[in-house]
Amino acid sequence: MAEETRWLSGAEQDVWRTFITMTSALTDSLDRQLQRDAKMPYTYYEILVVLSEAPRRELRMSELAGLRGSSRSRLSHAVSRLEEAGWVERRECPTDKRGQLAALTDAGFAALAAAAPGHVTAVRESLFDRLTAEQVRVLGEISAAVLGGLDPDMLLPGNHPRDCGGGHVADSPHTAEVGQPEVGADT
Amino acid sequence: MAEETRWLSGAEQDVWRTFITMTSALTDSLDRQLQRDAKMPYTYYEILVVLSEAPRRELRMSELAGLRGSSRSRLSHAVSRLEEAGWVERRECPTDKRGQLAALTDAGFAALAAAAPGHVTAVRESLFDRLTAEQVRVLGEISAAVLGGLDPDMLLPGNHPRDCGGGHVADSPHTAEVGQPEVGADT
Repeated sequence: MAEETRWLSGAEQDVWRTFITMTSALTDSLDRQLQRDAKMPYTYYEILVVLSEAPRRELRMSELAGLRGSSRSRLSHAVSRLEEAGWVERRECPTDKRGQLAALTDAGFAALAAAAPGHVTAVRESLFDRLTAEQVRVLGEISAAVLGGLDPDMLLPGNHPRDCGGGHVADSPHTAEVGQPEVGADT
Repeated sequence: MAEETRWLSGAEQDVWRTFITMTSALTDSLDRQLQRDAKMPYTYYEILVVLSEAPRRELRMSELAGLRGSSRSRLSHAVSRLEEAGWVERRECPTDKRGQLAALTDAGFAALAAAAPGHVTAVRESLFDRLTAEQVRVLGEISAAVLGGLDPDMLLPGNHPRDCGGGHVADSPHTAEVGQPEVGADT
């Protein structure tokens, strides 16, 4: 090694081990709930949520990959499965021949609306009910700090350039929320 | 719905979205580093680390699944790939006919030792270098609180019953550390 490795201290190792085990167990737990109650894996749910919040309920595939922090190939596979289920449609991007859009169908929106209450309850019971208000606040700070240091392609909605379908953000306010689609208030 | 859904508040949604995107992007980033520099996915690295820390460098498959918060079927698939690489061997558990052990080979230990400096550097740069000491402390608290509320099968090392190979813990102190194998001090 040209440079000396900065090994983790004992306290850092404990935090890292607990953190990485928690995230894995939490994701698995949320996935099991959705598979059991809504017959869809968590990764599909996340795609449906992001599309439900987008203007006209559609996004470029490249935007979708960035938003979910997932690779193009994995996303493409998931979207193919969602197309087979009739929940998503792929379309050409009208203003950019290189781009391809993924659009939520009405059936996809209905599937999301049916799945949301159970998922949000699981998120609340698994995470928010276990933490103090101060811990929740610090978790937000930590998450933003770490995310800010990672690949700039991994951006949150609102920070992401929209080079297809641009200009729709102002016309279609984002009222929907992660983990709960716009229908949330009606159910 | 029999019970009214406790939807997330706007602030909670922001925290949840940032947290879940961060964990996904962080895991992807660590996976890319390991794939690029050590030709192994992050899931394989984690299995090798856990085995490297176990007494006699072996664990029951059921223990390994619990420690990593992963399903049996996914673990079984990963261990099969690790066997093909010559890094792990599966053996029958001598004290329990129902159990099967996964054991780290010398080649597996060498592969882990070669991969560890790059991975630990990535963890430090992606997470610890981005956070204050106080944020690291709270992250540990948060992770333990959430993990404690999840499936009791998801346990950290030391909390897990050892019904095969029991009694070795006292003989073989755990000096190794997550993310860095015992060889760490020598490299």
